[in-house]
Amino acid sequence: MAKEFKPKARLPRGLVDRTGAELSATRAMLEKIRAVYALYGFEALETPAIEYTDALGKFLPDLDRPNEGVFSFQDDDEQWLSLRYDLTAPLARYVAEHFEQLPKPYRSYRAGYVFRNEKPGPGRFRQFMQFDADTVGAPSVAADAEICMMAADTLEAVGIPRGAYVVKVNNRKVLDGVMEAIGLGGDENAGRRLTVLRAIDKFDKFGAEGVALLLGPGRKDESGDFTKGAGLDDRQAAVVLAMLTGKGVRATDVGVEVELDDVQLAAALAGNAAFQEGMAELNDIRTLLAAGGYQDRVKIDPSVVRGLEYYTGPVYEAELTFEITDETGRPVRFGSVAGGGRYDGLVARFRGEKVPATGFSIGVSRLLAALAFLGKMDADAEVGPVVVLAMDKEPARIADYMKMVSELRANGIRAEMYLGGAGMKAQMKYADRRGAPAVIIQGSNEKDAGEVQIKDLVEGARIAAGIADNAEYRAARPAQFAVKESEMIAAIRDVLERRAAPSLGLDD
Amino acid sequence: MAKEFKPKARLPRGLVDRTGAELSATRAMLEKIRAVYALYGFEALETPAIEYTDALGKFLPDLDRPNEGVFSFQDDDEQWLSLRYDLTAPLARYVAEHFEQLPKPYRSYRAGYVFRNEKPGPGRFRQFMQFDADTVGAPSVAADAEICMMAADTLEAVGIPRGAYVVKVNNRKVLDGVMEAIGLGGDENAGRRLTVLRAIDKFDKFGAEGVALLLGPGRKDESGDFTKGAGLDDRQAAVVLAMLTGKGVRATDVGVEVELDDVQLAAALAGNAAFQEGMAELNDIRTLLAAGGYQDRVKIDPSVVRGLEYYTGPVYEAELTFEITDETGRPVRFGSVAGGGRYDGLVARFRGEKVPATGFSIGVSRLLAALAFLGKMDADAEVGPVVVLAMDKEPARIADYMKMVSELRANGIRAEMYLGGAGMKAQMKYADRRGAPAVIIQGSNEKDAGEVQIKDLVEGARIAAGIADNAEYRAARPAQFAVKESEMIAAIRDVLERRAAPSLGLDD
Repeated sequence: MAKEFKPKARLPRGLVDRTGAELSATRAMLEKIRAVYALYGFEALETPAIEYTDALGKFLPDLDRPNEGVFSFQDDDEQWLSLRYDLTAPLARYVAEHFEQLPKPYRSYRAGYVFRNEKPGPGRFRQFMQFDADTVGAPSVAADAEICMMAADTLEAVGIPRGAYVVKVNNRKVLDGVMEAIGLGGDENAGRRLTVLRAIDKFDKFGAEGVALLLGPGRKDESGDFTKGAGLDDRQAAVVLAMLTGKGVRATDVGVEVELDDVQLAAALAGNAAFQEGMAELNDIRTLLAAGGYQDRVKIDPSVVRGLEYYTGPVYEAELTFEITDETGRPVRFGSVAGGGRYDGLVARFRGEKVPATGFSIGVSRLLAALAFLGKMDADAEVGPVVVLAMDKEPARIADYMKMVSELRANGIRAEMYLGGAGMKAQMKYADRRGAPAVIIQGSNEKDAGEVQIKDLVEGARIAAGIADNAEYRAARPAQFAVKESEMIAAIRDVLERRAAPSLGLDD
Repeated sequence: MAKEFKPKARLPRGLVDRTGAELSATRAMLEKIRAVYALYGFEALETPAIEYTDALGKFLPDLDRPNEGVFSFQDDDEQWLSLRYDLTAPLARYVAEHFEQLPKPYRSYRAGYVFRNEKPGPGRFRQFMQFDADTVGAPSVAADAEICMMAADTLEAVGIPRGAYVVKVNNRKVLDGVMEAIGLGGDENAGRRLTVLRAIDKFDKFGAEGVALLLGPGRKDESGDFTKGAGLDDRQAAVVLAMLTGKGVRATDVGVEVELDDVQLAAALAGNAAFQEGMAELNDIRTLLAAGGYQDRVKIDPSVVRGLEYYTGPVYEAELTFEITDETGRPVRFGSVAGGGRYDGLVARFRGEKVPATGFSIGVSRLLAALAFLGKMDADAEVGPVVVLAMDKEPARIADYMKMVSELRANGIRAEMYLGGAGMKAQMKYADRRGAPAVIIQGSNEKDAGEVQIKDLVEGARIAAGIADNAEYRAARPAQFAVKESEMIAAIRDVLERRAAPSLGLDD
């Protein structure tokens, strides 16, 4: 194989290897998420990583080739395949394929890696895990409200304290209605609508004043960088700001109230069907949240936009509200860890008729990063293995060591024999590196005496650090001692228990 | 989006969706495997699905393009990327990349999907999961013996009974030595060696007589199909058969004994360095297996070949020995569910110097299929959710139902409100389909009375099936009853407990 060519051992950018503590913390977190989703009546589904590009909706418009943002390749029969870039498009394919057989509404959850052929950056990977839950076939906003409640319960279940997060809800219909009322409806205004949505999205960050600039002439930041505005006039911008701040635009139990200085635009907004429908839906959601007791955790927020084009109704975002410092050292909110919304058109791509659907997606790495920051990561790191040193490399002696290891394992004790070729000192170093709680030593003298030496590495470390130099203490907890072979298991159990038990009070 | 084009909802061949019971059984099985690997001192590692094609060693020899067996695509910078086709090549890349930082020996386990761009068939998928464990940096065959023991423990941990499996061990060096002794060494004989190895691989199936034909002139099967032979003469074939049957070729504590009619070939074999080394290693492995008490579960078997070119020493295969019926209805052994071996050259691709390594891989779906066949699949299927029917679609009433659901969930009871638009009958059908243990009904009469109706669907099914028509029994376990709202949780708990508890003895 490859006689001359020596490849460099490296990963493509935006891809990472994961090890021990991160993997076990992820596993623990995923299991907690799964338990909440199951409690809410959702069912497990897993779709493959590869799909037909057309089924993912990722052919470029008017071009017979896949979007550059996805990893694509051709099958034997020339059909284009792509790696899934989210877990929603595959769900839509699955539902359309099995529509008649599925219970409706169909509630499913899915966890898995997704792939983006995009420029990676800090915290932005080309392969990352999402954990989604979706309800398909439920037109009622009760389905949206439920998913928001579930998002709140999920965050608490994994360890985000109440008060440290908020699930924000808005409605695309409200945004659409505002756009139409200020004359930005229609395909020809798609670009400007996007600029307006981007401005709205900055409300948290820049406040009403900053957004007003972004809606109008543009905004210069502290560094002098200028962001071009949407070019709305003052009357138009006032409507958007009224919606954002709630001053003059309110949903009440009897309908929508709009009171603006500009009577004409106020009437246009109040009479807009999408706006009315959106506000009514938000009001229903508010009622349901209060009924479930979630009103302090899930809140209506008119500034939530959500980027994806396919949302058609309520949109929601789970945001962590505590502060971290950004790359420049400034305090910023941790921000979004999950989001979603209603997408009634996605299954329709296959079936023609609309199929109501709503769902959300957790960014697994991002949520884990938040737990790590809060010190809530389930760092239930495995105790290292007990290492039986290979003092003598003769086959018969190796067989003795192997027998000890088998006995330890048969007693449920994580253990291994040192399998390398190094001497005693390197073997001790290896045991340290593996986080071994103890090593077992049996040279020829011990063998003749039917004994093993046990070295307690936890005690050893305490003694080495000078934190246990009390003579009485050392006598009670020797760092190395000999036991009969028949007492090895019991002695190792003692060492493991001492390790886990509170200290004698002398060393910390 | 995609206004005219309506894609068909379908998956590429060789790819599948997985649901409920299969996913939960897989999860349970993976966790059991993981626990054994951890007990043996192995550490978790996860590498990404995408690697550089050259790092996987999957450029075609003498051609600047990837092997057709892997899914490949070009990165922005034109470098070829591939989906991993196993978990060993990525491990070799990882070890080479982090060689200095890793403890050595480095024991790792990895579970994940791998991808093969090959023709799928029954039970052969283009995406499937493997669960691997490898020890890198241990030249001693104790590492191989240990992995074989771990394979045996793993099979038992997931539920394969002792006696229903065997882990077979052989050594590539033995096979290489035999080839050299009969004059099939050297690059020019690579093709014939492969034919000989294939013949050896059929020993289990066709016995000595069948293998003799495949080694010599060829073999015609019952259907008349002819398999071309390796064209060995009788003297050469006799050596191979002696090795396979152990008649005339034995490893003993003092060395290798070869007694063959053909004195010249006997001497060539006895004097062959690879053969001697291989036999000595197998003998050491045998000693270690006996020391650990595994001699009845892990056995030396000269017919084990293992296809992959990169093996350089001991090879092993975990085989399930019970019979199933094949596609034609004939009884066949279930066969291999895991395998592996020593591959001292794989990390060397990157580093130049050889790095000893040995490891094995479990085919996850295949092992799960075996458990399903044995009725040992952990079908700890989740109980369906308690369904609160949406009797009245008014927002205030929906809020009442949502409140009930929240209360159930807060008490740890899997529950949901019916979120669709259908009437009572369809809602009951939905609850049945979801495997709901009970539904909760509150129309306006019950609401006015401060009550809910609870319908016990498990009892209901028993009654409907006529298996509980005893009047006394029915009175003790009513299938539908009313309780005060404040007693709802307790009543549902009763229903769930009755469901789980042994029956009253009247109905089965």
